[in-house]
Amino acid sequence: MRFVRFGARGAEKPGLIDEGGTIRDLSGSVDDLSGHALDPARLDALSRLDVTTLPAIPADVRLCKPVGRIGKIVGVGPNFPVAASLAGFKVNPEPTLFLKASTAACGPNDPIEIPRLATRVDWGVEIAVVIGRMAKSIEIEGASSVIAGYCLANDLSERNHQLQRGGQWTKGKSHDTFCPLGPWLVTPDEVGDPGSIDLFLEVNGIRQQEGAAADMIFKIPYLVSYVSRFMRLEPGDVILSGTIGGVGLSYDPPRFLKAGDRLRVGGTKLGEQEMMCRDE
Amino acid sequence: MRFVRFGARGAEKPGLIDEGGTIRDLSGSVDDLSGHALDPARLDALSRLDVTTLPAIPADVRLCKPVGRIGKIVGVGPNFPVAASLAGFKVNPEPTLFLKASTAACGPNDPIEIPRLATRVDWGVEIAVVIGRMAKSIEIEGASSVIAGYCLANDLSERNHQLQRGGQWTKGKSHDTFCPLGPWLVTPDEVGDPGSIDLFLEVNGIRQQEGAAADMIFKIPYLVSYVSRFMRLEPGDVILSGTIGGVGLSYDPPRFLKAGDRLRVGGTKLGEQEMMCRDE
Repeated sequence: MRFVRFGARGAEKPGLIDEGGTIRDLSGSVDDLSGHALDPARLDALSRLDVTTLPAIPADVRLCKPVGRIGKIVGVGPNFPVAASLAGFKVNPEPTLFLKASTAACGPNDPIEIPRLATRVDWGVEIAVVIGRMAKSIEIEGASSVIAGYCLANDLSERNHQLQRGGQWTKGKSHDTFCPLGPWLVTPDEVGDPGSIDLFLEVNGIRQQEGAAADMIFKIPYLVSYVSRFMRLEPGDVILSGTIGGVGLSYDPPRFLKAGDRLRVGGTKLGEQEMMCRDE
Repeated sequence: MRFVRFGARGAEKPGLIDEGGTIRDLSGSVDDLSGHALDPARLDALSRLDVTTLPAIPADVRLCKPVGRIGKIVGVGPNFPVAASLAGFKVNPEPTLFLKASTAACGPNDPIEIPRLATRVDWGVEIAVVIGRMAKSIEIEGASSVIAGYCLANDLSERNHQLQRGGQWTKGKSHDTFCPLGPWLVTPDEVGDPGSIDLFLEVNGIRQQEGAAADMIFKIPYLVSYVSRFMRLEPGDVILSGTIGGVGLSYDPPRFLKAGDRLRVGGTKLGEQEMMCRDE
């Protein structure tokens, strides 16, 4: 099943996409796609509703991030060998983890803000893993039971702030709109093997990133287990599983985003994002 | 005014401390000390209630972190020259920022968990700044208007996970219970100049840290303004302003926490924390 959240900022409602592609309003059945509503068993119950009884929503409604009340966004550093070497990052023997401010999350078509002091805003299409159940020091074998689903993500960074202003990546990763999520939260049964997902990212119609999740070094169940050893995962937490080759930093000369640029970002089974960049 | 949250986990109630030191139940006036309830104007209105009309709560009640629904915890790296040089950290020309998982927050007397794989769990008494109003790219002059208050904090770290497992501090900073907060949220009018606060930390009755917030390199209004340039601050966000000299890493040989250790942590006007360490 593909779940969505739709509507104006501050008035987001939960919904799902029916077989014909129409958004159906779920607000009669669940308050929001957040917290315990993300439990795989509860999402499964929602997906069994008779969708024809749910109000249809016009296709031009604003889509929001498909997860409400995100607790934390855990980023994974270099996780694709080609991407890492092109961008000059070292792949560590175990994942590099960082946190993005949860306020960085936005909807799949919301404009991306170029921060006032930014000069090197970079992109990175990724698969986001949405947590649906509490997980603490869980084994790899148990990881799939805590996953609510997957969504498309763009892990934006300001590279100067990330790499040249004091030693930690936080500053470059946390600006508002630096984590578009969606359009959909896609349940694991619908995605099947996440390794079968192909990802791409285009800027102004030119393809910058293209690659297969199959090339991921640290696979998703391992990542969920690994993160849960260092911090408790809760429903509504998001793990970004790392980007593929072709970030702006990896080109010579490097390529960065500016106001007016148009992005198109996509992943098999995960849908597409389209948005403009604009100045803060 | 000093605000508290009290009660069992999952059933926290808001309260305040009256002039006689008795906890008074505020749950008839406000749902929780979270979100918009942290707006300085709303806290001010609560502090004007006739406290004698509020139910008194037994002194042995469990105190919780004094802020509900913490959005993000922003840590500030080396911010005291002596502390930095003793521990082998470089003071940067601008603050180093990192994020702790918000799930690391706990109450001021809750046991501290020594993670299963931990060998070097370290402490760090700090002043936490609690945000009460949205702030984005604000000037230093406006910073005080978005501060709900201050509380005592301990920024715990697992130094191996922070420094030797993949390049970012996140893994060492985010374990459950690695951010005890409280006992109180103290409003700015009651604290006066945060630079007048003296801080200390004891392990098993032996003083390990002692110092004055006056020695802070980057002062609190600057920090609030600085952080707000890189990420939106929201009510319920917390900024940890950096620790004073005497973290375990700075001793020769270094000193770390183990199950059974007893901590006492305090700050002028901010109260004291006392807790035991125990294995995960």
